[in-house]
Parts: sequence; structure tokens; C-alpha cells
Amino acid sequence: MMKLPEPVQKVVDALAELPSIGPRQAVRLAFYLIGRPKEDLRVLAQSIDALRAIKICERCFFIHQNAGALCDVCMNPARNQRVIMVVEKETDYLSLENTKKFTGRYFIVGPVPKTGFLEAWQKTRLLSLKKYIADELGGAADEIILGFNPTTLGDFQASLLLKELAPLGKKISRLGRGLPTGGEIEFADDETLGSALDRRN
Amino acid sequence: MMKLPEPVQKVVDALAELPSIGPRQAVRLAFYLIGRPKEDLRVLAQSIDALRAIKICERCFFIHQNAGALCDVCMNPARNQRVIMVVEKETDYLSLENTKKFTGRYFIVGPVPKTGFLEAWQKTRLLSLKKYIADELGGAADEIILGFNPTTLGDFQASLLLKELAPLGKKISRLGRGLPTGGEIEFADDETLGSALDRRN
Repeated sequence: MMKLPEPVQKVVDALAELPSIGPRQAVRLAFYLIGRPKEDLRVLAQSIDALRAIKICERCFFIHQNAGALCDVCMNPARNQRVIMVVEKETDYLSLENTKKFTGRYFIVGPVPKTGFLEAWQKTRLLSLKKYIADELGGAADEIILGFNPTTLGDFQASLLLKELAPLGKKISRLGRGLPTGGEIEFADDETLGSALDRRN
Repeated sequence: MMKLPEPVQKVVDALAELPSIGPRQAVRLAFYLIGRPKEDLRVLAQSIDALRAIKICERCFFIHQNAGALCDVCMNPARNQRVIMVVEKETDYLSLENTKKFTGRYFIVGPVPKTGFLEAWQKTRLLSLKKYIADELGGAADEIILGFNPTTLGDFQASLLLKELAPLGKKISRLGRGLPTGGEIEFADDETLGSALDRRN
């Protein structure tokens, strides 16, 4: 490949590392950025830099920028901390939160590897959840909802988490199969997700 | 949609503006970035900021960071400035340059709109090319190659540019059509095979 100016190559390399962006698309994006007004580039650079100040909630591991250690949901006294929705990723959290039907709180475990072996950081997260349930909820949450996709992989992930969490919830549930089988939480509309919440079993 | 922290929303909005990146992918990319080490974010932000210093060549409109106004190819005395390859975009320039077979120079006209009406900035670029050919090449380049895609749109773009540039080149050509190296006769379309037959050598 012809050598690009070093700052351009740096941006290309960084963009190509992003999930679902290939090397060719990274080059196209870099050229698009170069064609933008200089002020736009400054704003984009500053916004990305500002991401460094984003904090991760100590309880559910969602993002926040509160003064304390907890995110908006976890520090909200109106939310039931004894009902815990375990989800794979932040975008699932967002989709569920958008239904405005869930009054418990979340726990983001991260993408469960297909190997079935959790990463070290995922084990650390699980340990903190177990400690919270032991210390704060007297050893058992009122309900643990396994909010995984209604897919083969999601079933696998749920069964894995079930093994870990079964003793820690008075009730363990999954999202109702009002969700179309084979679909994904992230792409479901609010109505469908709402009924899935209502019919969790 | 649930409100994201402002710095996150800013990055999401900026990413969603990039070509071929949708709003959902923008959210996923932002969460991916938040999960990166803080040092990586700083480096990415700095690289994007550094793009502001990238210059555009006054002659061919490719990028460069030379002290003068010209890019590496345009200021290279070994390149024939009387043979001009007109291309749609920077990535086409890169692909052609990678062949190491072209010894002329380029002219990036930008994506010709399907309406057939060039944007104001494209007209400005064309004017500068015409002025260069008039002032520096005595009114006609030795050869102008219309380096557009061998597609219906590319044919349309080439015909449009041909109208503009026909009087300014002693010879006007397009990239040769035929079987792509590594391709198979069995799977070639009629058009491609036809050109391959016409231009057998």
C-alpha cells in the first residue's frame, strides 16, 4: 500500500481496530474526516478525549458521570435493588430501559464467550454481584432476570449464568418469549420488549 | 431513547454522521471506545486532531503534508505532469498508485453526482485544472485518462468529464476493460468477455 502521511495512517489504524470496520472502510472514513471542516475535527477529537472521564458503575457496570460510584439507575431510590436484570451489553440495557417498564436494576456481565469460560474481568464482576447479594440482600435477591437474547447463544449464556446465580435469587426468570425467536433485544421495538418484561417466567 | 451522558452522546452523534455508519452502530462503537484503555482514547483523539494539519494538493487535490502546496506525486520531477489521470476519489488514486505502473499524475474530481450537475467545489477544481493546462501545458495535456469505474455510473461520470475535458487533451483514454486477473471465463459477464475479446493481445 502507498504510504499515507503519518497522522492519516494513525487514524486509519485506529478506525480499523473498531468492531465491524474493515481496513478499506477505515481508509475511506479517514479521507472523509480530512474533508470535514477543521472545527468539526477539533470537536470530534475533544469528544473522544472526553470519554476518558466517563465512569463505570461499581454495582451494575453501566456508564455514568455522577460524583459517586453509582450510575443513575443504581442510585435511584425508586428503583428496586432486589430485582436484578443480568444483560450481556450496554445496548441491551438501553433497549430495556427505554421500555420504561422495568423498575429493578441491571447487571452487565459482558459478552459471554462461546467457549463457555468467562473472562477474568467477568468473573470479577460476578464476584462483586455475589458479594452485594450476600452483604446487602441477606444472601438472595428477590428476583434475578436473565436478560439474554432468545437465541441459541443466548440460551447457552443464560444456562451458564444460571449455574452461577441460581442459589442467589428467590426467583430466577428469563424474558418472556413474546420476543420473536431468532431476534435480538437490541433490535426489538418497545412494545415487544414491554410484553417480554410483563411475561417473564 | 434513554439519555446518554453528554460526552457519549456527542461521540455517538459524530460517529453516526460518518458515511456507512448507522445510529445503532454509532452507539455500539461509542461503548466500545469507552471500554478501551484511557491512553488509547487520548491517542485516537490526538490523531484525529492532527488531521487538521493535513493539506490538500493545489494541483491534484490529494492529501499531503509537504512544506509547499503540492503533494508527493505532483512535486516529483520523475512524474510526467502532461499525463493526467482523472479519478473520482482518493482511494482510487491509492489503488492505481499501488500498481507502481503509472508515471503521470492525478486529478481528483470527487464523486460526480448522479444528477449530472457538478458541485461548486468540483467546478472550482476543474477550473484550476483547465487553467493549469492552459498556462503550463500550452493548452493541451499529452493524455487525459478518465479513471472511472467500469460501471453504468462510471460510464456516466466519464461522459460528463469527457464533455469538459475533450478539448484539453491530445489524447483521451479510459482504463482498459477485460478479464480481471484471477477471474474465470466461466463466471465473467457478457460485457466483460466482450471487451476481453475486442482487446485481445
